Amino acid sequence: MASVQIFKFSISSPADISPLQKIQEAGYDPSQILAVVGKTEGNGCVNDFSRTLASAVWEPLIPADAVTVFSGGTEGVLSPHVTLFLRETGDATTGLSASVGHTRTLAPHEVGTEEQARQVATTVAQLMRQMDVTTEQVHLVLVKCPLLTSDKLQAIRAQGMVPITSDTYESMARSRYASAIGIAAALGEVPEGDVPAIMRQGQGEHRWSAKASCSSGAELDDCHILVLASPAPTSSSPTRQQRLHAVSRPMADAMDAASLLHLLDQVRKDAGEVVQVFAKAEADPSGRVRGFRHTMNTDSDIHSTRHARAAVGGLIAGLVSDAEIYITI
Amino acid sequence: MASVQIFKFSISSPADISPLQKIQEAGYDPSQILAVVGKTEGNGCVNDFSRTLASAVWEPLIPADAVTVFSGGTEGVLSPHVTLFLRETGDATTGLSASVGHTRTLAPHEVGTEEQARQVATTVAQLMRQMDVTTEQVHLVLVKCPLLTSDKLQAIRAQGMVPITSDTYESMARSRYASAIGIAAALGEVPEGDVPAIMRQGQGEHRWSAKASCSSGAELDDCHILVLASPAPTSSSPTRQQRLHAVSRPMADAMDAASLLHLLDQVRKDAGEVVQVFAKAEADPSGRVRGFRHTMNTDSDIHSTRHARAAVGGLIAGLVSDAEIYITI
Amino acid sequence: MASVQIFKFSISSPADISPLQKIQEAGYDPSQILAVVGKTEGNGCVNDFSRTLASAVWEPLIPADAVTVFSGGTEGVLSPHVTLFLRETGDATTGLSASVGHTRTLAPHEVGTEEQARQVATTVAQLMRQMDVTTEQVHLVLVKCPLLTSDKLQAIRAQGMVPITSDTYESMARSRYASAIGIAAALGEVPEGDVPAIMRQGQGEHRWSAKASCSSGAELDDCHILVLASPAPTSSSPTRQQRLHAVSRPMADAMDAASLLHLLDQVRKDAGEVVQVFAKAEADPSGRVRGFRHTMNTDSDIHSTRHARAAVGGLIAGLVSDAEIYITI
Amino acid sequence: MASVQIFKFSISSPADISPLQKIQEAGYDPSQILAVVGKTEGNGCVNDFSRTLASAVWEPLIPADAVTVFSGGTEGVLSPHVTLFLRETGDATTGLSASVGHTRTLAPHEVGTEEQARQVATTVAQLMRQMDVTTEQVHLVLVKCPLLTSDKLQAIRAQGMVPITSDTYESMARSRYASAIGIAAALGEVPEGDVPAIMRQGQGEHRWSAKASCSSGAELDDCHILVLASPAPTSSSPTRQQRLHAVSRPMADAMDAASLLHLLDQVRKDAGEVVQVFAKAEADPSGRVRGFRHTMNTDSDIHSTRHARAAVGGLIAGLVSDAEIYITI
Repeated sequence: MASVQIFKFSISSPADISPLQKIQEAGYDPSQILAVVGKTEGNGCVNDFSRTLASAVWEPLIPADAVTVFSGGTEGVLSPHVTLFLRETGDATTGLSASVGHTRTLAPHEVGTEEQARQVATTVAQLMRQMDVTTEQVHLVLVKCPLLTSDKLQAIRAQGMVPITSDTYESMARSRYASAIGIAAALGEVPEGDVPAIMRQGQGEHRWSAKASCSSGAELDDCHILVLASPAPTSSSPTRQQRLHAVSRPMADAMDAASLLHLLDQVRKDAGEVVQVFAKAEADPSGRVRGFRHTMNTDSDIHSTRHARAAVGGLIAGLVSDAEIYITI
Repeated sequence: MASVQIFKFSISSPADISPLQKIQEAGYDPSQILAVVGKTEGNGCVNDFSRTLASAVWEPLIPADAVTVFSGGTEGVLSPHVTLFLRETGDATTGLSASVGHTRTLAPHEVGTEEQARQVATTVAQLMRQMDVTTEQVHLVLVKCPLLTSDKLQAIRAQGMVPITSDTYESMARSRYASAIGIAAALGEVPEGDVPAIMRQGQGEHRWSAKASCSSGAELDDCHILVLASPAPTSSSPTRQQRLHAVSRPMADAMDAASLLHLLDQVRKDAGEVVQVFAKAEADPSGRVRGFRHTMNTDSDIHSTRHARAAVGGLIAGLVSDAEIYITI
Repeated sequence: MASVQIFKFSISSPADISPLQKIQEAGYDPSQILAVVGKTEGNGCVNDFSRTLASAVWEPLIPADAVTVFSGGTEGVLSPHVTLFLRETGDATTGLSASVGHTRTLAPHEVGTEEQARQVATTVAQLMRQMDVTTEQVHLVLVKCPLLTSDKLQAIRAQGMVPITSDTYESMARSRYASAIGIAAALGEVPEGDVPAIMRQGQGEHRWSAKASCSSGAELDDCHILVLASPAPTSSSPTRQQRLHAVSRPMADAMDAASLLHLLDQVRKDAGEVVQVFAKAEADPSGRVRGFRHTMNTDSDIHSTRHARAAVGGLIAGLVSDAEIYITI
Repeated sequence: MASVQIFKFSISSPADISPLQKIQEAGYDPSQILAVVGKTEGNGCVNDFSRTLASAVWEPLIPADAVTVFSGGTEGVLSPHVTLFLRETGDATTGLSASVGHTRTLAPHEVGTEEQARQVATTVAQLMRQMDVTTEQVHLVLVKCPLLTSDKLQAIRAQGMVPITSDTYESMARSRYASAIGIAAALGEVPEGDVPAIMRQGQGEHRWSAKASCSSGAELDDCHILVLASPAPTSSSPTRQQRLHAVSRPMADAMDAASLLHLLDQVRKDAGEVVQVFAKAEADPSGRVRGFRHTMNTDSDIHSTRHARAAVGGLIAGLVSDAEIYITI
């Protein structure tokens, strides 16, 4: 497995590229960049130009085969930052491996559909083969995928087709779902043959992946994908060469402190410290979380996604004492 | 000390008065109501009519000397609910005592000023004398206080006076601060003689109370006050008659999980369970929390108060596994 | 035709019932109230408690067969106010007649469906028969209709049914549409037999009524309906007895100043003055208005309905030099 | 006077630079660009990254001495677009002249102060001398000026200084005001000697300029300035060489359709057509517009600036039948 190093830097604005200099000061070269994964301070919704701005300033500076994944929304205590995944050179091993890729460009009418799921599944499977990892070793698949803008909706209609939704904000959820189902198929969490049926049934069916983190944006037309894997910890203490580990566990709901404390216990047992957290947040569509009525879905002033990031971000940031964490919808 | 019983009920809307029937089913009478303290699902800011609606439906139903304290804003996982404080009859003791009162009506130009602080201090001191409690036994002073609406601003200017601020949202903070300083004076947390100087210096001086919970609203012209006290736990196990306790501790910042875990440990040691949490949330005005840049103060789409309630609410709700908690700004 | 008088009053908050005293000062009695139609200062969306507050304070004060129609959202220059429709006594004629009614309570699963359209159509037809007016004489049919809250969605699912939409905000549009189609059927603007097909096809089909003004709210479970009619102006100048007139004309889009100027010319020719304006506003779902791209449908911070009211309200208020106008979505 | 040509193009996103190709198709060269003045679709407030994105993509493409002025906020029907001011070559005269410049970089503590006003005044005066125009011939002075971000506030405090405001959103108004007073001083609308006193008194004093259009942004540290002038129309019909004219007139309030209709009459008399409109919008700080209570200043969900742009934009767009107009706060 090709090893990766992880660096995390705060950014002063979406246009802040100072981390580039900082990795050089640490002895790395921009050509080693595999992925730039960032949280920027926009609304994380349809008209979030902080993501577009970050993409615009970073993409000319990284290798052609590297990917950017910017997620808007640093609600509550969350703090804007970027996480850089860097290829280690030579035979250095870190205990963590990663691989990145793109799907082909998706036509507007394909966004959020079975075809997107299939494209993502294919790319994730390819990346896993390249990395030579098992599904158990994969702890995270990050996907940044397109959404339907007013212009894309118009293009679909101009072709005499019916868009999956006329609501641009809703299209973000549809696109995330298609990507997540693609990941689940690649990881064997849902049978690949079920994908058409699952996509037809819509989101009500509660199919999900324990490893997927997908977010949508207007700033791209294909899907950017990063697969992160870690071998199971060996019985012996980790050596300096294997000092990075990934652990993962689904949260049962937005109030699931117990799952987080469980993972933090694992880290503590290994005398480790938390480098970065990747977590998903959601306003339960049932209108209830752990039996309590929440008002995220009926708040017409703040989208539920912003509420959910703030709440789950507040919980995790407090537990890990770190606000530069990657919490997305 | 007159003992109080605490009941907590979810509400389906700000106009939901079904808790009134539920306390009757539990053997209590509306005439025993001392205070109705609720979280309603508005924006918690200037134009939050959920508070006004709740006040309008509850006030005709409770004793004339009882108070309502409604705080808007159930961001994130927070769940709308009311907490009822009921006078125990006869010599029943619960381990918890409370007393409520009002200041006189404040003229528009007094809102957020030294005069408001003085009125609150006087009323809190009176309530403590009635209860015969020491400052150490007081764990919470809840205040609901007025804000400056456009109409009140106009009234001030019509008298040839200059309002403390022309910004109605900012007036909410000024009013909360004046109330908190009044509480701090009554509890000896700041010398009473320093109040004029503190109020002149403004909020920059970081004077604060460890027991105050103040929120502002357009739905009232005086201050509604509730003082909650609890004797120190005795060495013996609490008896059924002393089954309610209050513990309190300041949070160092919006990510202070440690203080919360410390209090939860205390509860666990006493084999207790959490009935209700009253906590304050704030977007640190420095623009940083625990060294991390936050974006709550530069988000022109969502007021920082909403961000802060969502984040701190997410943290505390997760830790206590209860979303019906009283988190205010 | 039973004549009605119209009064319009500014309100200082959604709870302001001072207009009640003002009509008494003008020689009218609350028992003459037929309808209270108001604009309140909430967000006009799902969680707009300003409407609920206004309903809560007004409904106990008006006759049992009178209706309230409160529409939230006074964006931009729009000013909160109520318009009171009062029954004239004796044989006084004003040139304007009105009649009000309710549909039966709609079950949650009926909201926004063909059944709602049918109920509205039936009630409007009944009111027109009572008034003995032709469809040409009807200039406005105001309907306030229910929406789907999280609780109603849950109730629908608990019955094993599928809601027309899971999005509470979207349900507002569905309910408005059903009501408007009901009105169109009653006025002969669409053939009554086409209603089932129209409702099946959804909103894409661009069926509409030139006389309907429907808005949705969480504060009611039936539909409140007001029909306003005016005979064609006679060739002679209007007498004192026929001093109120209604004129109406569809706006082609949100920038249609010409239609408004055309109506204002009619008023000017009759040496009249504008008493009240009832207009609808919409963010064109195509994403374009008069060929120009607008961003109302891709703004995830402000709902398109709020944008549209502000823009159309700004246009009409400027043209009539009156900000107390009834602009709804 | 050096003549300028004006082109206006719609943009599909803040990053859309297609107008560059369109001016080339029209026979112009990018080197002739004097200014790019655009409306982008962000919130127009502190965290509007649509402006930063537009600046980032345009600035590398225009001459070093050209300026960008991007104003966020296309609320309501307003449509994202750019207006390009191009230097005419040779002795072509268009009837319109323009000149652009920058002030020096302003230190954080200078933003919104007398010093900013002085810098703007000096630069505007220089530009007018270069153009050799009288104050009467100037119809518009556009300024884009900095605001106070959390980082700038921190820098000010780190120097032991007190910022003019701790509220980043409020700093936008302070900066606009300082620029406007600078313009007023340069145009003789206020005596230059009064500037220190005016800036000390704050915005309450209602000093203003009839020609200023200032907006603030986080994307720059100096002020970008454009002065636009037009000779008085000659008695004879305008020739082809003098086919561009500027007319201007203050709006009395946000509902002032009369002033707009007056200007449109002037255009009609000259058989002209409207190329572009530059207008300012404001939520009257008194809380009333033309005697009517408005709720823009007490809406804690939408900033008053967004309300005001939507309303005034709706009025003007309707009257000129053009949504690509430059309406700012």
